[in-house]
Amino acid sequence: MKHARRLATRAFRAQSGEFLAEGPQAVREALGTAGVVIEVFATADATDRHPALVEMAGDRWIQADDDVLDAVTDAVQPQGVVARCRSVIADLSELPHEARFVVVCADVRDPGNAGAVIRCADAAGADAVVLAGDSVDPLNPKAVRASAGSLFHLPVLVHRDVVEVVSQLQRQGLQVLAADGVGEVGLFDDSLDLAAPTAWLMGNEAWGLPEHVSALADHVVAVPIYGRAESLNLATAAAVCLYATAAARHRAG
Amino acid sequence: MKHARRLATRAFRAQSGEFLAEGPQAVREALGTAGVVIEVFATADATDRHPALVEMAGDRWIQADDDVLDAVTDAVQPQGVVARCRSVIADLSELPHEARFVVVCADVRDPGNAGAVIRCADAAGADAVVLAGDSVDPLNPKAVRASAGSLFHLPVLVHRDVVEVVSQLQRQGLQVLAADGVGEVGLFDDSLDLAAPTAWLMGNEAWGLPEHVSALADHVVAVPIYGRAESLNLATAAAVCLYATAAARHRAG
Repeated sequence: MKHARRLATRAFRAQSGEFLAEGPQAVREALGTAGVVIEVFATADATDRHPALVEMAGDRWIQADDDVLDAVTDAVQPQGVVARCRSVIADLSELPHEARFVVVCADVRDPGNAGAVIRCADAAGADAVVLAGDSVDPLNPKAVRASAGSLFHLPVLVHRDVVEVVSQLQRQGLQVLAADGVGEVGLFDDSLDLAAPTAWLMGNEAWGLPEHVSALADHVVAVPIYGRAESLNLATAAAVCLYATAAARHRAG
Repeated sequence: MKHARRLATRAFRAQSGEFLAEGPQAVREALGTAGVVIEVFATADATDRHPALVEMAGDRWIQADDDVLDAVTDAVQPQGVVARCRSVIADLSELPHEARFVVVCADVRDPGNAGAVIRCADAAGADAVVLAGDSVDPLNPKAVRASAGSLFHLPVLVHRDVVEVVSQLQRQGLQVLAADGVGEVGLFDDSLDLAAPTAWLMGNEAWGLPEHVSALADHVVAVPIYGRAESLNLATAAAVCLYATAAARHRAG
């Protein structure tokens, strides 16, 4: 359990190659992914409430006291069950060759935002998400929670160098669209071909994308503001961009 | 200051008809709205950093010690400036007659979500937002923060009875679209006329819309899920729906 508790830190996650998935939904998705779950800690109460998870986990299910569970999780509302998992994060070299819809977060710092973008990318039918630059660790407990299981649904990659990520995506034939409030093209402009193979590039919550990164994009695209708001927050801007792509791909068949 | 501190509670906000707007952006928007700001409390540091706000506030600017400011705000990262404001919330009777694009939150409980929906409604060009049913108070400090100033940009109404809200919107000639993961129509289906005058109805984070409310809607609309995610979170689902309407209205001119 002491080991599990240390997985709250990025350094120990990196060193051990493990992370924690909390709550019945995340644990179910983790158990449904081959080779991921090492063991599951659960309270007596959670054990009673989730017989299907107990069965999936088999002898990896370990009952523990409530206060032990509380010590492992940082959730405001602990849900009584947490899985110790092997990392599901891949490197850029593992980007699927056939990927035609990719989302790249550059320097996204808030774990809730990173998780929300992964969830939304999954919903919109993206083939992969790349956490690039100085982005938060997608295995951070808050990011895992916010992804609502989507972390286990599509490849999530981490790569430090955003420029290399952009180059590789372009070499694979994807247009790179940089989302930026002051972009040169509006998201709904006819000049954009949203049905084409696309990588969306989302920047930091506060300062957006660095100029040398936007400069590499094929287009810098703004979500139009029709009212008086200054901007959208990162997760909602990503949702609007990713679903504009999803809708266009769907229409194009 | 004791008075200001009590504004953290909904009961005292209702009794006093006042609320707090924290941070330079919210304070700027509040000061830019006639008759709203009663007084502004700021640290010496914030006073130095925001000369334009000091000028806008005039003799309503009150310098206070850092620990006094800290006691008033519940922000994780206090920004040294907070305005005591008169309520900007209206009743359903004040819904603009010419409204053609309205967002209704029914039983939305999380203040961050309520604020994010208000911000997104503003960005998408909505005419008003209604917090209906058992929804969180939009003047909750977290909701005000998440709205990023949009609370001051468009009418935000509160009304207890969701059914009455839906009836009034339909009487005003708006189609009511209930957002629901298991809706009968997909958001991008050709059968939907998204450019028509529309009210979007968004339900609770966990359990969605009550059936007797969905039943009143003209259509129950699902954001399609193209991947393996179970659903979107409330704020991102709202963003996708509201921008689908915004784009259709924009295309229709």
